[in-house]
Amino acid sequence: MIDQTLLPHRFVIATMETHRQTAEAIRGMTIRGAPAIGAAGAYGLAQAAAEAPEGDEGRDYIRRAEELLRSTRPTGHDLFYMLDRVMRAIEGSGGPDRADQALKAAERLVEQSVLRCRKIGEHGAELIQDDMRILTHCNAGWLACVDWGTALAPLYVALRQGRRARVFIDETRPQLQGTRLTAWELAHEGLAGEIIADNAAGLLMRQGEVQIVITGADRIAANGDVANKVGTYEKAVLARENKVPFYVAAPASTFDLSCAAGEDIPIEERSAEEVLFVHGLNDMGEMTRVRLAPEGSLARNPAFDITPAELITGLITEFGIIQASPEAIGKIMGRSADEGAR
Amino acid sequence: MIDQTLLPHRFVIATMETHRQTAEAIRGMTIRGAPAIGAAGAYGLAQAAAEAPEGDEGRDYIRRAEELLRSTRPTGHDLFYMLDRVMRAIEGSGGPDRADQALKAAERLVEQSVLRCRKIGEHGAELIQDDMRILTHCNAGWLACVDWGTALAPLYVALRQGRRARVFIDETRPQLQGTRLTAWELAHEGLAGEIIADNAAGLLMRQGEVQIVITGADRIAANGDVANKVGTYEKAVLARENKVPFYVAAPASTFDLSCAAGEDIPIEERSAEEVLFVHGLNDMGEMTRVRLAPEGSLARNPAFDITPAELITGLITEFGIIQASPEAIGKIMGRSADEGAR
Repeated sequence: MIDQTLLPHRFVIATMETHRQTAEAIRGMTIRGAPAIGAAGAYGLAQAAAEAPEGDEGRDYIRRAEELLRSTRPTGHDLFYMLDRVMRAIEGSGGPDRADQALKAAERLVEQSVLRCRKIGEHGAELIQDDMRILTHCNAGWLACVDWGTALAPLYVALRQGRRARVFIDETRPQLQGTRLTAWELAHEGLAGEIIADNAAGLLMRQGEVQIVITGADRIAANGDVANKVGTYEKAVLARENKVPFYVAAPASTFDLSCAAGEDIPIEERSAEEVLFVHGLNDMGEMTRVRLAPEGSLARNPAFDITPAELITGLITEFGIIQASPEAIGKIMGRSADEGAR
Repeated sequence: MIDQTLLPHRFVIATMETHRQTAEAIRGMTIRGAPAIGAAGAYGLAQAAAEAPEGDEGRDYIRRAEELLRSTRPTGHDLFYMLDRVMRAIEGSGGPDRADQALKAAERLVEQSVLRCRKIGEHGAELIQDDMRILTHCNAGWLACVDWGTALAPLYVALRQGRRARVFIDETRPQLQGTRLTAWELAHEGLAGEIIADNAAGLLMRQGEVQIVITGADRIAANGDVANKVGTYEKAVLARENKVPFYVAAPASTFDLSCAAGEDIPIEERSAEEVLFVHGLNDMGEMTRVRLAPEGSLARNPAFDITPAELITGLITEFGIIQASPEAIGKIMGRSADEGAR
């Protein structure tokens, strides 16, 4: 996988030899983005199945591996979705071929994930006009997925249809996924992007410079409340205040019907270091960590927030653009379950 | 003056020998914060009066110096307020004593500014309960003024009265005045502060963790619209959404009756570098600039935004806490003019 902690300064392919290394890569954000974490989790569990000894001892090994992978990041749902399905394949297999079955399940799920993102792009592209000014938060492009992306997929499909969006990129403190990842990804797609401090989004909306906001999601509750990168809620409130449509793009694997509403979604609190320090390239071209705050400073660092369904104009899914309502979500989740059963 | 570009990592007193050096210090943000810029401008013009040759040639020199000082930062109003008043003293003097008169005027204005901030603190302290959780944006403490501060003055007066506030400090990208300056200043006052990414303020408000928001202002229009550090508007919209009182603290010198409304206030656009790079201390303890974004990235960097009066619970002034309304503002500006005439 691409080591996303080093982008945009270094392009390094990180190889994870064991399920433990894969778990560590998820926790440390070598890989990030809900669908990409899900894919890594699926392969991680397949690794565990390959590592496991035969018989009951192996079953315990796999169960502990699943627990380890599950414990890496608490908020995004795709990870749990993928682990559940690979686990089912393992349990459904006769013992000896479980490693094979696990790998096949992971590969099938990852292929599905690519198709889902592509479909999200096709549905979402209908919202994108030529030269449209779009605001996005964090990175929900192909770096966050296996391919295409979620929030950015509509822009990429529109581009292939001849319509070229212009993007305001929230830098997305504290981890700067906008500055580091979205700016890099858009440049690779040949799309124009301008980075802004997260603080400037409100002003640009008020000045009429933003025509639509599209973000990804880490988990969507049954009622349409969305957990996504911290700051998403701020942008959604500002979008409504300024009458800018606010869309969230996500595949069925991000929806969690076991959470009735946003308050049921656990919010990961990450290290204060991410706020107090920053990594970048010094004038010698060396990766360097610098301290921003006075020594001894305290910081709070919630990594996600909850955007209530009422602030969301629509959810862009692989089944089409739907309302952020229990009814509409129930319907697509029924279709998704049917597809999964086929 | 304290070199604020080096805080919190280095404490350096910068000395400006000429009005040109003073102008450069304002432009480059060695000194920042509307009232502090105003004070520096007043002394800068007094420097010019001392540097000027006698007679008409000297008058031209002083006028050009005033223009230079005026051109340094476009948004904050205190600078223009102070320059106007020192200029009046120079023009009112017989030629030979104009340097003396200019310096006396600057000193009088700066003393007034300290008293005004102290009064703001006394009026604002009535809002502060013991252990209250306060959100502030940017730095509007004594670093931004000559003493006491504006937004933070109420906290300091309350502290001397035995009530200890707890502060959530917006880091305030791109220049990180919260992380660098407010965190440092609060630590010096012995007040507890926690730095947060600007993105996290909305979540904390929604979780009921913020009881009041207080910010400073760079310019306030006749109708009560407020220009302040970019991001202030975002926090004001989120405060209303979450029913958190939102106060702006500023002295009469920040009010500009010649601006009918916020859209008349020019918004400074600063260098993209402030968004694409950041300064901090590397692991060797050296001040270091690091690049955050991919090479060739573009950025937009508006330094201020406009918060409409309707979002403001109250304005904390040296004359008391007033509504952000034309009537209330007209009244205090009348009192301020009366005091100035005495």
